Amino acid sequence: MPVAASADSSAARHARTPGRLGRIPIRDLRPRQAENLWAANSYVGEVVPFEATVFREGHDVLYVALQLTDPSGTSTTHLMREIAKGSDRWRAEVQPDATGLWRWRIGAASDDWATWLHTAEVKIAADQDVEVVFAMGVELLRRGTGKVFADAALALADSGLGAAARLRVAQDPRLATAIAAAPLLSLVTESDEQTLRVERARAAVGSWYEFFPRSEGAKRLKSGKWTSGTFRTAAKRLPGVAAMGFDVLYLPPIHPIGVAYRKGPNNSPTAAPGDPGSPWAIGGPLADGPDGQKRAGGHDAVHPDLGTLADFRAFVKEAGKHGLEIALDLALQCSPDHPWVTEHPEWFTSRPDGTIAYAENPPKKYQDIYPLNFDRDPEGLSAEVLRIVEHWIAQGVNIFRVDNPHTKPLWFWEWLLARVAERHPDVVFLAEAFTRPPMLTALAEAGFQQSYTYFTWRNTKAELEEFLTGLATETADFLHPNLFVNTPDILTEYLQFGGPAAYKVRAAIAATASPSWGVYAGYELFEDVARPGSEENIDNEKYEYKSRDWAEAERTGRSLAPYLTMLNRVRRDHPALLQLRNLRTHWSDDDAVLVYSKHLPAGFTPRKRPDGVIVVANVDPHSVRETMVHLDLAALGLEPGTNFAVRDEVTGQRWTWTDSNFVRLDAFTEPVHLLSVEYGAKR
Amino acid sequence: MPVAASADSSAARHARTPGRLGRIPIRDLRPRQAENLWAANSYVGEVVPFEATVFREGHDVLYVALQLTDPSGTSTTHLMREIAKGSDRWRAEVQPDATGLWRWRIGAASDDWATWLHTAEVKIAADQDVEVVFAMGVELLRRGTGKVFADAALALADSGLGAAARLRVAQDPRLATAIAAAPLLSLVTESDEQTLRVERARAAVGSWYEFFPRSEGAKRLKSGKWTSGTFRTAAKRLPGVAAMGFDVLYLPPIHPIGVAYRKGPNNSPTAAPGDPGSPWAIGGPLADGPDGQKRAGGHDAVHPDLGTLADFRAFVKEAGKHGLEIALDLALQCSPDHPWVTEHPEWFTSRPDGTIAYAENPPKKYQDIYPLNFDRDPEGLSAEVLRIVEHWIAQGVNIFRVDNPHTKPLWFWEWLLARVAERHPDVVFLAEAFTRPPMLTALAEAGFQQSYTYFTWRNTKAELEEFLTGLATETADFLHPNLFVNTPDILTEYLQFGGPAAYKVRAAIAATASPSWGVYAGYELFEDVARPGSEENIDNEKYEYKSRDWAEAERTGRSLAPYLTMLNRVRRDHPALLQLRNLRTHWSDDDAVLVYSKHLPAGFTPRKRPDGVIVVANVDPHSVRETMVHLDLAALGLEPGTNFAVRDEVTGQRWTWTDSNFVRLDAFTEPVHLLSVEYGAKR
Repeated sequence: MPVAASADSSAARHARTPGRLGRIPIRDLRPRQAENLWAANSYVGEVVPFEATVFREGHDVLYVALQLTDPSGTSTTHLMREIAKGSDRWRAEVQPDATGLWRWRIGAASDDWATWLHTAEVKIAADQDVEVVFAMGVELLRRGTGKVFADAALALADSGLGAAARLRVAQDPRLATAIAAAPLLSLVTESDEQTLRVERARAAVGSWYEFFPRSEGAKRLKSGKWTSGTFRTAAKRLPGVAAMGFDVLYLPPIHPIGVAYRKGPNNSPTAAPGDPGSPWAIGGPLADGPDGQKRAGGHDAVHPDLGTLADFRAFVKEAGKHGLEIALDLALQCSPDHPWVTEHPEWFTSRPDGTIAYAENPPKKYQDIYPLNFDRDPEGLSAEVLRIVEHWIAQGVNIFRVDNPHTKPLWFWEWLLARVAERHPDVVFLAEAFTRPPMLTALAEAGFQQSYTYFTWRNTKAELEEFLTGLATETADFLHPNLFVNTPDILTEYLQFGGPAAYKVRAAIAATASPSWGVYAGYELFEDVARPGSEENIDNEKYEYKSRDWAEAERTGRSLAPYLTMLNRVRRDHPALLQLRNLRTHWSDDDAVLVYSKHLPAGFTPRKRPDGVIVVANVDPHSVRETMVHLDLAALGLEPGTNFAVRDEVTGQRWTWTDSNFVRLDAFTEPVHLLSVEYGAKR
Repeated sequence: MPVAASADSSAARHARTPGRLGRIPIRDLRPRQAENLWAANSYVGEVVPFEATVFREGHDVLYVALQLTDPSGTSTTHLMREIAKGSDRWRAEVQPDATGLWRWRIGAASDDWATWLHTAEVKIAADQDVEVVFAMGVELLRRGTGKVFADAALALADSGLGAAARLRVAQDPRLATAIAAAPLLSLVTESDEQTLRVERARAAVGSWYEFFPRSEGAKRLKSGKWTSGTFRTAAKRLPGVAAMGFDVLYLPPIHPIGVAYRKGPNNSPTAAPGDPGSPWAIGGPLADGPDGQKRAGGHDAVHPDLGTLADFRAFVKEAGKHGLEIALDLALQCSPDHPWVTEHPEWFTSRPDGTIAYAENPPKKYQDIYPLNFDRDPEGLSAEVLRIVEHWIAQGVNIFRVDNPHTKPLWFWEWLLARVAERHPDVVFLAEAFTRPPMLTALAEAGFQQSYTYFTWRNTKAELEEFLTGLATETADFLHPNLFVNTPDILTEYLQFGGPAAYKVRAAIAATASPSWGVYAGYELFEDVARPGSEENIDNEKYEYKSRDWAEAERTGRSLAPYLTMLNRVRRDHPALLQLRNLRTHWSDDDAVLVYSKHLPAGFTPRKRPDGVIVVANVDPHSVRETMVHLDLAALGLEPGTNFAVRDEVTGQRWTWTDSNFVRLDAFTEPVHLLSVEYGAKR
């Protein structure tokens, strides 16, 4: 912190005190993880609120500043403001522009000049202690260096001038500028150093699409048998996915699939010949590839039906040409046919009869899956998983979607992700931790760049308000959510019974509430029939091929693809939507009409123009709702009472809005308004 | 943690893993202060909930235990239970019985036997893997030592026995007892060591009474002049205070009072001859004592009007005979006549004209008070304050009520209280920190045994529910509240305009909601007239003598003393009321009827019988309220639907209560029910 020093009281100026919190307590620093075990997380372009609770005895004015050092070692100072007078909570917002570890601390001090100036203004007006007051001001100014300080000190000391004139010297903007550059402080206190890990933007910002490559180009022959899609046939779908505006394509496991205890359609315990099996039953026996070569293997192999490793690399490259990054599944479990079963039985749990324990929830048995045991040879198994991850990175993969991370020890992920981050700082891991909150949040803290969340099970207005606000505040320092609207495992009742309106509502909220969102193929076709009694699609693609006629659906208007395309366009047009922490809920008089906004001030947008979007969603997909919407305009950077123009990105309609506004949302046509605020537009 | 060891997998049993949280994460330990800068606080007799969030991958049964070491070095292990299934939050309650620093940590492990037994019960019933299951059980039992383990292992291995019989062996209570003493665990993980400072009970539990000794025995002469009360005359009031059941008597400052700029009645800027001045304007010039000796001085002196240091010691001793501890005011500020002003000008702020800065809030001036400056000679001033505290401890004082601690640096209190605690662990400091929450809580964390709170300004049902619940949960690990109903500085509008009902309501809530509460003299006389526009009594005792006729008030029935006496008796009869954390709010259908209870299970009470009190208060002092009260009976240790007897400690009436109950509370007679639950009584 820059400090104008003086000889007489420098001891007090940098007070060394015996207290644990120093002369001026600085507490509850953010961004920070719950127990500060690991660095907090951010991403390039995020507007990060650095905060602390700073307080002291008495009424002297505080000076609080953030000292920030970027990964290259360059330090900057950012003045902090008290969020609300009397709150003792101070904040400065900064937008990191480089990946790596940022270091920061907060400094607090007594702002001697501001304290004096306030006293002087009151006392001179009351004609109290005039000479003593100016003498104190002179004492302070003599701590500064340079002509501006010296001239001001001379004028303040000049009792020949009138008191008002001397005060005006003290209030001169040039003096204020000089003092801002070299503040006159005492009791300077600094917090401990904190760290913030800044990742590339994709770690938190992206539109994800998931498909099974074996389905893309799969064909059902007249015999009823299927031929599998391959990386080459799946590549033909890439332009379609890219045209919808997605930028990450996530593939379920692409490895050989076990034959022993293979599951048939609809999770039946027996598979018929030709049934492809679940891609998550990883590890297959030797088999003929399409090139006539016998291949087999586990997590480092490619399923022979899909092609070769070279085909995969070509697929990754082709996806890149369409602006799509490939996310690969990392599912650490094995089929009985996995090579590790014979080569490394120590990586599994063995039973007294010498057999390997399959997965079970007694009396239920899951004999197609052998869970890994991380406690028998932790070093060996960890090294092998690291080798596998490195193998796929070498093929061009920089994103991994991790299946069920919560069924492996936390320490393992902490170790693995730290090792990978050291060598490949751009690699992103998404945690599919559908488990209880402590494990879900600990995985995010310990290194996962992204997390699935409980989004699919938060459907009412009240649930969504609490859930989205929680994501934007409580866990935002370490958990970056990816709001998938559906998955091969999750077809919620809301989607099963909500019709097309439900599909629009969920997609619109996912795409706007979180910087990352995702869609599993088939969503755009409103595939909403579940296997009875389950929360999964009937004839689930996990166990069979699916051939979908995308073009026919779009031609007949039975596709949500144009809506998804619109959502991804709105995301690109509105930088405010690529932030997580700026979500603010507003009010409506209807308990099914959810209202939230995102705003980014001009200083933080690429084109230096303010950006704002208001989302108004009727979350009851079976109704028409008419209600008033009440906005906290300050959350949009507007003064209360302002009239402003909004444009509905869904329909193109334009309206003039103000604090309270009428809306009519018809679930049977358009259940959601996506209103962009037209700052400065004529109304 | 006791662990039955075995050779083959001891590495896994005490897993050393690279993670920061170890093999089984143990997080968010309580009791703990916000940032764990200082030890959490407790007191002898408090039932302390030790808690942690413990979670792991998979479904194996967890074993979680508290390891507690008392100040003498004796360690005990306490099994922890999951608060609610699936919460991942574990708790064990322990009642510390000795003062000093307790050390504790939490251990977690995989409970191999419980996991196996659950699996065995399901699988044997389904006739699955019978021999493998028993073989696993035998493997486990061989890790135990002793005949019970060996016999059970033999029986389990005996395939000649029926499966049901072998399972019964595994379920045998004798085996369960042996395993409880030496659990069969693996993946043992321990938290870092934590500390808990346990103070004497008075640090958190007490009934306080405040009077001005100069008023007790003060007499107005026919001339209109007053003669001051003295320690000798004030001692005559001790039996009366003790008879009301109080156990701490707090005295405003007893030191010489400044003459310069002395305040007159009702805070008038000028004092007439004979006006005694505010006891908080500490430090007087030389003056004649009643014994004819000239005395004067500052914080280590006694006001000549009150008597001598010897008189004070005698007063302390006499109070002790009545079961009253003396609490002395520690107000670190000076009148212009304080000896420090001339002897240690470096302990004040000096102005450029050589004068010492008085207190001011420009343009207001408080010329009767010189604030201390802790930044010019921190070591010297700190040492002097410590000397003063030691001086009063030497006179028999063990409790200090600290005036405005938030106007001095936090580090100073941390330092002072730690020094005093080292030499005099029984000394208690009460913080009068009527300031914003960060400073208020930091003072408590940094060492104050007790704190004033915002209680006087929490008057509605909704306010009180939130406030009292917060005290019992959020800050209970470090802040012990003292709920004063009034002070010489605080006569709230609620009391000014609420009449006798308001006085009853506030006293009943203060005495039952918190283990410590307090009353300033005059409360029992319903002194409810404020100086216009202020929140203080008119003709405030701070600036003049008060002569109150206690006996006359009681004789004519115009005294609350019998009610206060009843409250203190109820506190003595009910150990549940001497706990803070056990407060639970319940429900009523009336927005002015506040309901809460306190319960202590039999194991924690002196007579080993359950104790419970239900408080039902009509907090609108101008109304009669009839409503239903709905109780969560589990919070009282009762089954839902139970009928039980209650006795109203206010009126002696008895009723049979159950989950929902009718009440009628008439503010003009008795606005509060204090219902003791008669556990096991005939109904």
